Amino acid sequence: MTWIDPPAAAVRDVVARALAEDLGPLGDLTASLVPDGARVRAEFVARQDGVVAGRLCVLATFAAVDPEVAVEWRLSDGLEVRPGEVIGVVEGRLASVLTAERTALNLLGRLSGVATLTRAYVRAAQGNARIRDTRKTTPGLRALEKAAVRAGGGANHRGSLSDGILIKDNHLAGLTITEAVRRARRRWPGQLVEVECDTSLQVAEAVDAGADMVLLDNMTPLEVAAAAEVVGRRCPIEVSGGVTLDSVAAYAEAGAAFISVGALTHSAPVLDIGLDVVAG
Amino acid sequence: MTWIDPPAAAVRDVVARALAEDLGPLGDLTASLVPDGARVRAEFVARQDGVVAGRLCVLATFAAVDPEVAVEWRLSDGLEVRPGEVIGVVEGRLASVLTAERTALNLLGRLSGVATLTRAYVRAAQGNARIRDTRKTTPGLRALEKAAVRAGGGANHRGSLSDGILIKDNHLAGLTITEAVRRARRRWPGQLVEVECDTSLQVAEAVDAGADMVLLDNMTPLEVAAAAEVVGRRCPIEVSGGVTLDSVAAYAEAGAAFISVGALTHSAPVLDIGLDVVAG
Amino acid sequence: MTWIDPPAAAVRDVVARALAEDLGPLGDLTASLVPDGARVRAEFVARQDGVVAGRLCVLATFAAVDPEVAVEWRLSDGLEVRPGEVIGVVEGRLASVLTAERTALNLLGRLSGVATLTRAYVRAAQGNARIRDTRKTTPGLRALEKAAVRAGGGANHRGSLSDGILIKDNHLAGLTITEAVRRARRRWPGQLVEVECDTSLQVAEAVDAGADMVLLDNMTPLEVAAAAEVVGRRCPIEVSGGVTLDSVAAYAEAGAAFISVGALTHSAPVLDIGLDVVAG
Amino acid sequence: MTWIDPPAAAVRDVVARALAEDLGPLGDLTASLVPDGARVRAEFVARQDGVVAGRLCVLATFAAVDPEVAVEWRLSDGLEVRPGEVIGVVEGRLASVLTAERTALNLLGRLSGVATLTRAYVRAAQGNARIRDTRKTTPGLRALEKAAVRAGGGANHRGSLSDGILIKDNHLAGLTITEAVRRARRRWPGQLVEVECDTSLQVAEAVDAGADMVLLDNMTPLEVAAAAEVVGRRCPIEVSGGVTLDSVAAYAEAGAAFISVGALTHSAPVLDIGLDVVAG
Amino acid sequence: MTWIDPPAAAVRDVVARALAEDLGPLGDLTASLVPDGARVRAEFVARQDGVVAGRLCVLATFAAVDPEVAVEWRLSDGLEVRPGEVIGVVEGRLASVLTAERTALNLLGRLSGVATLTRAYVRAAQGNARIRDTRKTTPGLRALEKAAVRAGGGANHRGSLSDGILIKDNHLAGLTITEAVRRARRRWPGQLVEVECDTSLQVAEAVDAGADMVLLDNMTPLEVAAAAEVVGRRCPIEVSGGVTLDSVAAYAEAGAAFISVGALTHSAPVLDIGLDVVAG
Amino acid sequence: MTWIDPPAAAVRDVVARALAEDLGPLGDLTASLVPDGARVRAEFVARQDGVVAGRLCVLATFAAVDPEVAVEWRLSDGLEVRPGEVIGVVEGRLASVLTAERTALNLLGRLSGVATLTRAYVRAAQGNARIRDTRKTTPGLRALEKAAVRAGGGANHRGSLSDGILIKDNHLAGLTITEAVRRARRRWPGQLVEVECDTSLQVAEAVDAGADMVLLDNMTPLEVAAAAEVVGRRCPIEVSGGVTLDSVAAYAEAGAAFISVGALTHSAPVLDIGLDVVAG
Repeated sequence: MTWIDPPAAAVRDVVARALAEDLGPLGDLTASLVPDGARVRAEFVARQDGVVAGRLCVLATFAAVDPEVAVEWRLSDGLEVRPGEVIGVVEGRLASVLTAERTALNLLGRLSGVATLTRAYVRAAQGNARIRDTRKTTPGLRALEKAAVRAGGGANHRGSLSDGILIKDNHLAGLTITEAVRRARRRWPGQLVEVECDTSLQVAEAVDAGADMVLLDNMTPLEVAAAAEVVGRRCPIEVSGGVTLDSVAAYAEAGAAFISVGALTHSAPVLDIGLDVVAG
Repeated sequence: MTWIDPPAAAVRDVVARALAEDLGPLGDLTASLVPDGARVRAEFVARQDGVVAGRLCVLATFAAVDPEVAVEWRLSDGLEVRPGEVIGVVEGRLASVLTAERTALNLLGRLSGVATLTRAYVRAAQGNARIRDTRKTTPGLRALEKAAVRAGGGANHRGSLSDGILIKDNHLAGLTITEAVRRARRRWPGQLVEVECDTSLQVAEAVDAGADMVLLDNMTPLEVAAAAEVVGRRCPIEVSGGVTLDSVAAYAEAGAAFISVGALTHSAPVLDIGLDVVAG
Repeated sequence: MTWIDPPAAAVRDVVARALAEDLGPLGDLTASLVPDGARVRAEFVARQDGVVAGRLCVLATFAAVDPEVAVEWRLSDGLEVRPGEVIGVVEGRLASVLTAERTALNLLGRLSGVATLTRAYVRAAQGNARIRDTRKTTPGLRALEKAAVRAGGGANHRGSLSDGILIKDNHLAGLTITEAVRRARRRWPGQLVEVECDTSLQVAEAVDAGADMVLLDNMTPLEVAAAAEVVGRRCPIEVSGGVTLDSVAAYAEAGAAFISVGALTHSAPVLDIGLDVVAG
Repeated sequence: MTWIDPPAAAVRDVVARALAEDLGPLGDLTASLVPDGARVRAEFVARQDGVVAGRLCVLATFAAVDPEVAVEWRLSDGLEVRPGEVIGVVEGRLASVLTAERTALNLLGRLSGVATLTRAYVRAAQGNARIRDTRKTTPGLRALEKAAVRAGGGANHRGSLSDGILIKDNHLAGLTITEAVRRARRRWPGQLVEVECDTSLQVAEAVDAGADMVLLDNMTPLEVAAAAEVVGRRCPIEVSGGVTLDSVAAYAEAGAAFISVGALTHSAPVLDIGLDVVAG
Repeated sequence: MTWIDPPAAAVRDVVARALAEDLGPLGDLTASLVPDGARVRAEFVARQDGVVAGRLCVLATFAAVDPEVAVEWRLSDGLEVRPGEVIGVVEGRLASVLTAERTALNLLGRLSGVATLTRAYVRAAQGNARIRDTRKTTPGLRALEKAAVRAGGGANHRGSLSDGILIKDNHLAGLTITEAVRRARRRWPGQLVEVECDTSLQVAEAVDAGADMVLLDNMTPLEVAAAAEVVGRRCPIEVSGGVTLDSVAAYAEAGAAFISVGALTHSAPVLDIGLDVVAG
Repeated sequence: MTWIDPPAAAVRDVVARALAEDLGPLGDLTASLVPDGARVRAEFVARQDGVVAGRLCVLATFAAVDPEVAVEWRLSDGLEVRPGEVIGVVEGRLASVLTAERTALNLLGRLSGVATLTRAYVRAAQGNARIRDTRKTTPGLRALEKAAVRAGGGANHRGSLSDGILIKDNHLAGLTITEAVRRARRRWPGQLVEVECDTSLQVAEAVDAGADMVLLDNMTPLEVAAAAEVVGRRCPIEVSGGVTLDSVAAYAEAGAAFISVGALTHSAPVLDIGLDVVAG
């Protein structure tokens, strides 16, 4: 395990749920047709350029289906892969490999898709800002998707609503930014307080109130630059809202220390990876 | 509940897991700052054209967070929505609405994304073939995503590996198609047997062996048409593998009764839906 | 694992629940009295003629209680056993064996009972019809009982309500058979549609509507034969309702391809199997 | 709730598991065909003489599927029912009633079967001995089956291995009865200690050692009577092992205070109960 | 719900587990003896001075056992109570109240004990420092105990290991403080970084490295004051390790902004609260 | 495993819950900073006199975090430990040891605290009475805490409300002791019946009614002695309510066979145990 990996329990839970869902009450009817002694050697092969993530999920899937399937993994999470490149190799009972195949690929493809999109944003930001995820993750997969974002070179924003304070417009019904920050400090001392701002006026108030970070939502790079003037060195700036691969460089140059992108987890297309039999 | 809706238990489980994941050990720190008596009325508003799915998830999310939040839903799952159109309205304690917001939107956006992409394929097929999903679903969300496919006008393929037999290349290690079908009939009588074929020769063998359906994988529309000749009226044809919105019509015209599309569930972008406050 | 075995996860879940239920908060008070170093070798011995099923449950039970107990299994699931015949042997810490004994026997005896009764029906049908189970299974044990039916030589009917369509009388409130079948085809294409019929008229309508199978409920063998005339070769016939070991042959000869028997799972008496100590 | 009822949490857990198992990932395909507005009134009707048990399970099943289905129950658990007698009435959405039907009947039939067989033994014992269950219950259903035994007029033996001490032959490897009882008293003071005996010699030792009860296993009524002489009034006697409806009276007269019967839970045939539609 | 309350799901889970544990397979044998119609009105009464916490747990316990028991709560969590003072009143079926009593009192007493000890530390700190909890919570009860600390006037430290970085001695094997902080910033940007220090030299290095907070472990108030000189206004200081009610004021005066006390959750004695019947 | 140990499943469940709670969605941020290859050898060292309990929890925690961490345990549960004494040694990856440390210590310290306090009461009772626990255990930890009481030399009272009958004041609304005992015997034959008494009159009634044990609540030693006169040798006496280390000897001498002490589990302070690194 490295710092990039998700907690082992999260992997185990997701894999158990996925297999239960996929096997159903009777098990894999089709794999049951295969001759009892048949064995196979097969390779996970990328069919596109991308970044690999999900190694632990693949290992856990085969381990749950049949501990005697051997899995030899070639590329750590976070490494880039070219079309045709072998990511890992499995060898064991044919029926077991076929039963585990879809669950393993669903997880590997999805998480590699998140890592790949993250890497694209990280590249586009040219080192001028850190790319972060959001809470717009797939229900039940947050721990895994946040790990995939790290594999892609991104950083994690809040793990949950318990972890840090992010004051948005809607929290300010009948409450000034100043009062909200003050209340946050008093009730939750030691938690980082970030304030979402739509205008320079709000930015000024937030920074004066002592926010640890301001989040500029749905601003143009120019507006971000103007806000950055207001902030100065008093706290880092985060940008979010409609940032695309095309616009991310401009935002990074405008002074954002962090750029958070919901699409990393809510709209990343799957990375196309197949499991090719190399020997029956 | 209608036939489009997912089983209630699946909704409850996913929502409970999503909320546990999002609330963490301390709960919503930021929502806790809001004045105790503050109430809100807010609308789920589409920001794009699309098809709505996930109504039951939204209801279950608010019910789990605070049963006193009233949710009035305007558009049934399966209906189309225009930018700016109101999908539903919630009214209740501000803190509760803010706490539930992200989980509700994550589910609604993701499932509506699946329904929207499905509808696009259904339209493109011009009624000449049924669009079906695959087992390439998100781990833990299969029941919900399959319901979203129905909302989009698609049909469901196998619910799990227990449900029908689909013989692929890799199952045929040391086994002819004929023998595999025979074995399937003997062991699992009353289960539908579908055979994936890459060549016309395989198609002929599968149909002669009495397959209930053949699945033509990664063929061109022309190859599908040729295979359709071989099959005649003996069983329906399904097509899969790299079918796009551009090519789906050609496949449907070539004689496919079913076209199954993994992208419906593994790569549908989220439908952009927001929760707009209308009254504090 | 063979095609007869239940999914491994189902076995693990049932065994975990059974042990939790049986051990209670303090564990096995009585086994705790046994000398710490005491070991035992004991045999699972049949006390009746029957068919064995539940091997995986026994293995999982001992593995959960004490991974150091060695279990050597003699008879695969599906094999017949005579009174006095040894089915398997366990060897290990006496306290562990005693703690696991009841749970292992409860599962082995119950599942072997299901397999044994199934085998009796299969024999009585003399190869003229396949014996199938129903959804009248024990809550929580469906996957295991359906596997035991396969061990007995029977076939599985629907795994769940998601798996195939079976239109019964009560579904036809304000709906003709023809319309019901049409609706089933449209909504759930690719699912097998079976129609339960009480009269020849219904049989004719069902077959004309294109049902994949008709289920004749509570008919006499003579009525079944008459219905078989109506059906001809258009689809297979299933019979259910009050079929006994005495009448099953007559039904099979009357033209039923399948005979489904609720008693296989709801009323099979346990097969009497004991665990005999052979060496302290 | 009365003292006969199982704990509410056990009912809820079993029902949730049973419904998840029966609904599968897509829900009830067949019930989805029924017209949306269709409603039904239906009666649970006994088709045999028997004793009802499982009322709470039926209520919980309908509540879980559709809280708007009204259930009016006529016969409390423990009451006797005649063929044709109405046990309860449900009224609500047709699709909901059909979806819940099988799960409700599986539980009601099985538990009533246990209660019915228990009542037969209780009757046969003519008040001379109490009939008790054993730990030979269905995995996952112990709490419900033990409640059904109470409904039948029987009494519960140990709830789990944590609850009381029952020293059997196999516990006595390298340990005398006297030492086992002494150890039980020291380690688990306040727990009832029962000793299984095969011979009068063992009975004498057990009673002298201060056992709270002796369990005479696989003895004839005559042997029981002889053992009862040995015991005198020093402690109650329990009998087990192969007691049938025919022999139970003889055992009760021979001096058994308790007769425990594994068949109550491991081999009770289901009580035949149907759900008859009375109005569409 | 207020900001002091634990997340509702945490309350529900703990209560469900506690009741399952306490009811066992047969339910409350003793409460089953009570006459069926008997009702009761009873009061939760403090027998000591203290601070109340756990209201939601009490409500959830009675709701789970019998939704018809009415609970009227008098004192919000966080309020102080005197011996003899009534905290809440329940009214309903006697058997239900008796069954729920122990679970409700176990939770209420334990959580109020945490709140009471917290309040004592808060008082003793005389407003010069905030009292915080630690991760030394009871397994399975963290969310509830952290809420009880808030009720007592304390603040929460990290909710989990995912939430903030706290570099201790043992993390510094082969790693300087400077490098550890740098690595933390790079890998987990936006997370608060706190460094545990045993010496002034470490304090200086930590602050120079840009730590957000320093944790002075097992220092005397004098050593804390010296360290505070080193830190100046560069970051807040936390103190932990053996702080008692007697010494907390000295630490607070020495310059600690936060004082974290493991005993709040690992060694708080239960607050003595009884449930007194006022009317049968 | 010995008779002192808790059931393995209870250990596994608590440890899994504790780790999930402590790791959160991102895992141990701080341990992730440690160099990948770093290893450690560390010792569990007592910092106080006490009795060890919780060995299985420590083993299970490390096994769950990293099966390659080797744990060598020096002191069985139930043994006494002196300040500075080594209880066990772990060796393995530094990051794994740090991640598991807090959970392992939380369980070990808490359970050893229970064992230590129990031993103190056992000593104080000077062998004249057995010390027992109560149902005042920590929600979710009952099985572990009851095992810790055994480790301390105490005995277990009821495992749950299913396990034995204990009639208290509040059960006697509209029911005499005589009738309550009679009802208990009839409904729950074979269960031990204990009656809580506040006066000698009640004691006399309970014993005359045939109670198996009387529980004298909140009496002085003198009152206990008087009650013991009433009881004679007819049944054992248990004492509870406000018994302290100072008064326990007097109660034991006054004739109590059992003394049950809620504080053993509801108010035992943690035993101070640390994990000291001996080699990096």
